[in-house]
Amino acid sequence: MNLKPLGDRVILKQDEAEVTTASGLFLASDAKEKPQTGTIIAVGEGKMDKDGKLLPMPVKVGDKVIYGKFGGTEVTLDGENVLILRADDIYAVVE
Amino acid sequence: MNLKPLGDRVILKQDEAEVTTASGLFLASDAKEKPQTGTIIAVGEGKMDKDGKLLPMPVKVGDKVIYGKFGGTEVTLDGENVLILRADDIYAVVE
Amino acid sequence: MNLKPLGDRVILKQDEAEVTTASGLFLASDAKEKPQTGTIIAVGEGKMDKDGKLLPMPVKVGDKVIYGKFGGTEVTLDGENVLILRADDIYAVVE
Amino acid sequence: MNLKPLGDRVILKQDEAEVTTASGLFLASDAKEKPQTGTIIAVGEGKMDKDGKLLPMPVKVGDKVIYGKFGGTEVTLDGENVLILRADDIYAVVE
Amino acid sequence: MNLKPLGDRVILKQDEAEVTTASGLFLASDAKEKPQTGTIIAVGEGKMDKDGKLLPMPVKVGDKVIYGKFGGTEVTLDGENVLILRADDIYAVVE
Amino acid sequence: MNLKPLGDRVILKQDEAEVTTASGLFLASDAKEKPQTGTIIAVGEGKMDKDGKLLPMPVKVGDKVIYGKFGGTEVTLDGENVLILRADDIYAVVE
Amino acid sequence: MNLKPLGDRVILKQDEAEVTTASGLFLASDAKEKPQTGTIIAVGEGKMDKDGKLLPMPVKVGDKVIYGKFGGTEVTLDGENVLILRADDIYAVVE
Repeated sequence: MNLKPLGDRVILKQDEAEVTTASGLFLASDAKEKPQTGTIIAVGEGKMDKDGKLLPMPVKVGDKVIYGKFGGTEVTLDGENVLILRADDIYAVVE
Repeated sequence: MNLKPLGDRVILKQDEAEVTTASGLFLASDAKEKPQTGTIIAVGEGKMDKDGKLLPMPVKVGDKVIYGKFGGTEVTLDGENVLILRADDIYAVVE
Repeated sequence: MNLKPLGDRVILKQDEAEVTTASGLFLASDAKEKPQTGTIIAVGEGKMDKDGKLLPMPVKVGDKVIYGKFGGTEVTLDGENVLILRADDIYAVVE
Repeated sequence: MNLKPLGDRVILKQDEAEVTTASGLFLASDAKEKPQTGTIIAVGEGKMDKDGKLLPMPVKVGDKVIYGKFGGTEVTLDGENVLILRADDIYAVVE
Repeated sequence: MNLKPLGDRVILKQDEAEVTTASGLFLASDAKEKPQTGTIIAVGEGKMDKDGKLLPMPVKVGDKVIYGKFGGTEVTLDGENVLILRADDIYAVVE
Repeated sequence: MNLKPLGDRVILKQDEAEVTTASGLFLASDAKEKPQTGTIIAVGEGKMDKDGKLLPMPVKVGDKVIYGKFGGTEVTLDGENVLILRADDIYAVVE
Repeated sequence: MNLKPLGDRVILKQDEAEVTTASGLFLASDAKEKPQTGTIIAVGEGKMDKDGKLLPMPVKVGDKVIYGKFGGTEVTLDGENVLILRADDIYAVVE
């Protein structure tokens, strides 16, 4: 089963909260807007501009990203937590 | 009897709340903005841009979708609950 | 005596609240934003865009519509309640 | 002495509040945003768009109108109450 | 010494509050947003649109105007109170 | 050491608060939004419009200006207080 | 490991709070919106305009900048605090 996000939305699989990854990234737990990491598993077609043209998405399936917690919607997909959120709520790609 | 939604509105028939579907989708009950699933039964012509041109709708009749609860208006149509909401309040299509 | 609504406003005659119509439409009474039905009796010329061009109206005189309660202004016209509201506050046309 | 309203503003002479006119119009007194009627006595040149072009005004001197109470500014002109308000605060013309 | 207002700002010399002028204008004292009259003593070049073009100003030096109290900033210039405010806060010109 | 303000920001050196200058300008102390005077010491390149074009700045280095207190950020530069604020927060140039 | 900021976001390494630098810059501790200094370590591609074109970024890697505290998100990268924020939250470059 798949979810196809609409517009500029993406679906990502969240990492466990507050972990130090092998690559050294640690997300501070005391920030007001708690950042989180996850991996993109589905990407919408992009936001439609006023002329009906689609603007390209800044992330692709497989990208590991840092995102803001607010604005997303959690659903459980085939037993796993996934998060639907807008591309603009993604802050950076971890390379 | 039919309802023809105006602009970028759609009408959908809601699934029962909080169920695990055969395809494995379970909608978490503790989210602040409770996600819900339903099936599109009517689609408006689309939002009119500043030049009077209609922007295409991202869903069609028969699509199973995940949507946000807020913004929609419930009516009972021929004995069944339906929901009128804007296309932008639909998050993803279940495939 | 007539009222000519300005811009994208319409005037409609409201149905009695909370009734089951012959066609089976029943408007739920427990919704926060109570939907209502009525019949359009006058339609404005449409919203003027930035270039002074009029955008077409999505409803016409005689249409039975579902609309949101908020935003409209009630006046009594020749002894009957009518409602002045904007076209965007109309959700769907009952066919 | 005259007042020339600027932009999309108009000046109107208000009717007495809450009256049933000969033509049968009665303005409900229990509405939150109390509607009122009046006659236009001066009209601005219109709103200037981004290119410095004036958009035409939807009312003219002598029109009897229904308007929303909020947003206008009352002044007393040669002993009479008049109201300065924007064209968009006028809901309909009484014909 | 002079003040040159920037953008769509003007400088005006305020009349004394709440007076009946010879021409019969009296500003009601019980309005929430108290209107006031004054004379324009300096006018900015106008608001710059998105293309860097200046939109013409609707008033000129010497105009007697009615304006809203909110939004302006009072300064004392060579011993006299003057008010700096935006052109859009001017409601009408007294002719 | 220098600060180069970004976009439509400027840096100015503030006058002492609430003084009567030789030229007769006195800034009233009882205004809600206390106006202040200062001298521009650095000017950004200007705001970038949607097409990446820079809009010209309305002030230049050396201008004595009146500005609103809100929105600016104070820093101490080489022992002196300076203020970083946006060009739109500058009300007028003192000539 | 690297973070690639998306859109008009940058990543910077913050200076210690409230210090007087060798170049004489001291950031006042009593301002409501506490300014801070840091060095840019990564820059996004820029904001995408309505036509999908990227607007150039006003800062580059290595720039020492003054920025507003609000809006940014702190993460710890390889043991060091870094801040992800939008280019518009950067006030000035220290030269």
